[in-house]
Amino acid sequence: MLTFALFGAGRIGRLHAANIAAHPKARLGLVADVAEEAAQAVAAQHGASVGSVEEALASDRIDAVLIATSTDTHAPLIEAAAAAGKAILCEKPIDLDIARATAAVRTASAAGVPLAVGFNRRFDASFAALKARLDAGDIGTPEIVSIASRDPSPPPLAYVRVSGGLFRDMMIHDLDMARWLLGEEPIEVHAMGSALVDPAIADAGDVDTALVSLRTASGRLAQISNSRRAAYGYDQRIECHGSKGMLRADNLRGTTVEIATAAGYVRDPILHFFLERYGPAYRAELDAFVEAVLTGREPAPTGEDGLAALRLADAAQQSLETGTPVRLPAS
Amino acid sequence: MLTFALFGAGRIGRLHAANIAAHPKARLGLVADVAEEAAQAVAAQHGASVGSVEEALASDRIDAVLIATSTDTHAPLIEAAAAAGKAILCEKPIDLDIARATAAVRTASAAGVPLAVGFNRRFDASFAALKARLDAGDIGTPEIVSIASRDPSPPPLAYVRVSGGLFRDMMIHDLDMARWLLGEEPIEVHAMGSALVDPAIADAGDVDTALVSLRTASGRLAQISNSRRAAYGYDQRIECHGSKGMLRADNLRGTTVEIATAAGYVRDPILHFFLERYGPAYRAELDAFVEAVLTGREPAPTGEDGLAALRLADAAQQSLETGTPVRLPAS
Amino acid sequence: MLTFALFGAGRIGRLHAANIAAHPKARLGLVADVAEEAAQAVAAQHGASVGSVEEALASDRIDAVLIATSTDTHAPLIEAAAAAGKAILCEKPIDLDIARATAAVRTASAAGVPLAVGFNRRFDASFAALKARLDAGDIGTPEIVSIASRDPSPPPLAYVRVSGGLFRDMMIHDLDMARWLLGEEPIEVHAMGSALVDPAIADAGDVDTALVSLRTASGRLAQISNSRRAAYGYDQRIECHGSKGMLRADNLRGTTVEIATAAGYVRDPILHFFLERYGPAYRAELDAFVEAVLTGREPAPTGEDGLAALRLADAAQQSLETGTPVRLPAS
Amino acid sequence: MLTFALFGAGRIGRLHAANIAAHPKARLGLVADVAEEAAQAVAAQHGASVGSVEEALASDRIDAVLIATSTDTHAPLIEAAAAAGKAILCEKPIDLDIARATAAVRTASAAGVPLAVGFNRRFDASFAALKARLDAGDIGTPEIVSIASRDPSPPPLAYVRVSGGLFRDMMIHDLDMARWLLGEEPIEVHAMGSALVDPAIADAGDVDTALVSLRTASGRLAQISNSRRAAYGYDQRIECHGSKGMLRADNLRGTTVEIATAAGYVRDPILHFFLERYGPAYRAELDAFVEAVLTGREPAPTGEDGLAALRLADAAQQSLETGTPVRLPAS
Repeated sequence: MLTFALFGAGRIGRLHAANIAAHPKARLGLVADVAEEAAQAVAAQHGASVGSVEEALASDRIDAVLIATSTDTHAPLIEAAAAAGKAILCEKPIDLDIARATAAVRTASAAGVPLAVGFNRRFDASFAALKARLDAGDIGTPEIVSIASRDPSPPPLAYVRVSGGLFRDMMIHDLDMARWLLGEEPIEVHAMGSALVDPAIADAGDVDTALVSLRTASGRLAQISNSRRAAYGYDQRIECHGSKGMLRADNLRGTTVEIATAAGYVRDPILHFFLERYGPAYRAELDAFVEAVLTGREPAPTGEDGLAALRLADAAQQSLETGTPVRLPAS
Repeated sequence: MLTFALFGAGRIGRLHAANIAAHPKARLGLVADVAEEAAQAVAAQHGASVGSVEEALASDRIDAVLIATSTDTHAPLIEAAAAAGKAILCEKPIDLDIARATAAVRTASAAGVPLAVGFNRRFDASFAALKARLDAGDIGTPEIVSIASRDPSPPPLAYVRVSGGLFRDMMIHDLDMARWLLGEEPIEVHAMGSALVDPAIADAGDVDTALVSLRTASGRLAQISNSRRAAYGYDQRIECHGSKGMLRADNLRGTTVEIATAAGYVRDPILHFFLERYGPAYRAELDAFVEAVLTGREPAPTGEDGLAALRLADAAQQSLETGTPVRLPAS
Repeated sequence: MLTFALFGAGRIGRLHAANIAAHPKARLGLVADVAEEAAQAVAAQHGASVGSVEEALASDRIDAVLIATSTDTHAPLIEAAAAAGKAILCEKPIDLDIARATAAVRTASAAGVPLAVGFNRRFDASFAALKARLDAGDIGTPEIVSIASRDPSPPPLAYVRVSGGLFRDMMIHDLDMARWLLGEEPIEVHAMGSALVDPAIADAGDVDTALVSLRTASGRLAQISNSRRAAYGYDQRIECHGSKGMLRADNLRGTTVEIATAAGYVRDPILHFFLERYGPAYRAELDAFVEAVLTGREPAPTGEDGLAALRLADAAQQSLETGTPVRLPAS
Repeated sequence: MLTFALFGAGRIGRLHAANIAAHPKARLGLVADVAEEAAQAVAAQHGASVGSVEEALASDRIDAVLIATSTDTHAPLIEAAAAAGKAILCEKPIDLDIARATAAVRTASAAGVPLAVGFNRRFDASFAALKARLDAGDIGTPEIVSIASRDPSPPPLAYVRVSGGLFRDMMIHDLDMARWLLGEEPIEVHAMGSALVDPAIADAGDVDTALVSLRTASGRLAQISNSRRAAYGYDQRIECHGSKGMLRADNLRGTTVEIATAAGYVRDPILHFFLERYGPAYRAELDAFVEAVLTGREPAPTGEDGLAALRLADAAQQSLETGTPVRLPAS
């Protein structure tokens, strides 16, 4: 049994709390949030206590922490949890600054505590099945990975301003998927971007529509397209073209209902956003973390995975700003 | 080279005329129609002459006749063409009366002339591919054949009154498909029907919505559903459930375009009616007839196929009228 | 909060136990099973006690019973629970004998206890959405309901012998769906059936492959096809053709992955069987029952729904045996 | 009636010859090819004469020329035909050298003869329908155009060496589609490429796998992926994400047959290559050309369209070679 302290009782924290509470091998021991009312509500729902981060880290009852606070607190919380010897599951990104993020990961590593980063998409049933078949060699060597990832609507401008930009905030998930599927590290990144959804996003110094191309040392390619707005739902598709065939994973819908009238054949829009689409993936992510920690294996995606994706996001941002591709050192 | 006389210059006759004219091994020699203007138009378009049925049958230039006149003339034209030694491709049905139809087929058979009946659906690329895979054993033994067949809108009432009823006029195509796919003769037929589309069809003594169930001697089953109206186009689907799997053939669309908006994912309606859907099938039907006649093989579907489908339609009509299933002699 | 006693700790009982335990407004209080070890295991997992049916019905702590025992005990358990004033959620069928089933339903009704029958498919998200759109008039009046329902493989022969036959055991679900979607009571039933999957099923006096056609007073039609074996999974599809269009609900798959190679484009087989396919439906069924009982509304599907489906199954069985359609009194 | 001389009796020339012969308003008058036997065969099949280019251009009988010879002869033939006052339909590309191509187009323009370039994909029914809906505003403003274009297998190395490279030979079609769908001229081009299919292609100085990203002045983006090899057929897909939704056009298959077994649900591979996929598009291209010339309108895609696509291909090649994006002057 693994007892968690949850740091952060916002939307994503509440989702993790429910998953912990429902997990046969996990318990929610303590909830901490600067907004005490939010912490109270979550704790009450799942029979946990409310406390401070310090109390959680000092408590022998707590085995692991789940960090779901605002991004700027992730690195110090990782370091504090590492010092206290707690296993760590941290929402992405580790930090918007690669040096700060690296320091946190190195600290956890030195402390020998398990650390996993919340790239939940790796646990989506369809993406995981695609990856398994890719690894099984079903399409030979991967050659072109194509990822389409589009949010239903842009976040509030206030969030955009502190988000670190589309590449670090949104595309970082897709960059992680690209690394994962390419099976090799990208050594070159090129980005193009525009603010087509809302000019205020341009005023905030960001883009809302972007393309990224990646190349690995052996010449494998990946392309990612992002938009902050999709009228038809949360568009999340992956395709992998290989030497012997092609694998793809499509969007999900709430039902399989189709209606045919004189206007044509109509299916439902796709699932609305990440809570709907990736609900089962968050559960599977927790399963994998709990299982790894309880059996003494290293949980994944690792802190190094978190850093690698952030480096790609930084490179994409730099490419956008300079208008030229960015080379990365071969790993 | 096979030179045809075309009997009947209506909608379906014009389609056959164009196919004959475009065929590398066929020529349109003569067109006959009681409406001479219609015959003139078709003949002019394809460089054929206009003439009477008698002239066509007396001419050495004419090798084959394509009968696309009104149903009541099919049987006498078959007999006359048989007497003249011409190869015959006759639109379905041979006759609404099974005795009259049987006499015509026997006459052609006795004369030794090739006779094929226009069950064009056997030549649809998808249905033919399904049949080929069925015959190859890809799903083992067929157990349940399911056919959905729905017209976009009902024919004029004047036509309904002389059509011989939904089973002989419309479902006869599906009954032929069922026989073809079951691979055994049905020995029992049950029909249910209603006039849901237009009460005037009930007043005319017919139904516009119907179900038929069929059973063969070894117990294979088939179910057919017909409607005279489908808001979404000409619905033509076949499914065959077998001991090792399932084969199905879907409808066709004019394009593969799909649009996704907040209203959902929309594809085009299916092709509108038989001229659109079965255009290529009519060409393949002609190909098969020409090839068979020129090489001395028996063309298919045969006159016996035409009679067998009509017997099933008669049985369905009788089942509808009596409210009980009808047994057919095992063949 | 609604506290349940669970009668029957077999496969389906365990599924209900987990759903009750996970439900925010329900609790599992007691588990009874003739196999005490099975009851112990389920009770231990969910913190319930083990007891007899008599103890459960005598206990003030128990508000409702969930009957998941063998079919022959359903009717007496309904009557006993009704006498004890407990709300009842009973797995289908109520009884294989319509008179016995009717007596049980009448007893519950006279006692004024809520009684729902486990036609779980009504709670499948896709079927429920289809029904909602049908009721909203999206395709006008329903005219042809088509239901394909095929199990992955036949049950053990020992089960077949006591199952009451394919119509009462398997197709009863589809007959309930047909009633639900037709929006009118069927007044005529015709069945055809064969033993194509396993001749031993014929020896046991049953069929494994069957077609049923239904007709309502206003002439609406339904067709059902059943097979005890489908190589490609648990085939569960519904289609409703109406005056203004067509609605359909397709099967579900575990993932959206598709692989394209020289052999074609391949998707996963469909979900394997009812525990996979209808897992969420069982949860939604429990939700609806709990909500209805706690708010004093009548739960559905009602006991009368259970009787109506059984009458249709009886009629289908009779039609199969006599070879003629069976008329039912208009309701 | 428009009488054509066909220059080039190879595979693509034969396809055009058949389309001209079957066209109600066109005739094939003369066939010229350096391989006289090839010219003879085509001419004999369609009742045309064989002759030299000079004879064709000198003849009053010839209204238009269809240029389907090797690429290096396109520009001089355009100029000669322009001097002779013939309408010109020229296979792509006009020339591998942009200066030479520009000179040819300018010459035709100065002579006032109609000139169309064979970007046949614009006439594909699905792509044309997608474009029509885009122009109708069905998805608002286009923001991200995504084009996947993959050949079934690479051409012979001898061809690769004289092809002008993947961008000018293969991707030029996709670059034309991107311009057409973006509705604005790209002002920036970035390319990445690898030789993953065959190292001999790298030895020949070319790539076989490539990504291109495009940006227009207003910030619209396009991404193209190309591979010289796809195990599953000729992959030709377009997707356009816009402010109000998304349009896409999928591949085509020979049939709609699907087989379901324990191995999953399998559809046919997609159509094999361009002759199968774009057969109807070549016919529609000819229709449009004939109609434009006979009615005195300018045919499309124009010579300027041919030059614009070639400029993009040149920019992509330069980007690949330099490793940096290439800016193009705003038009």
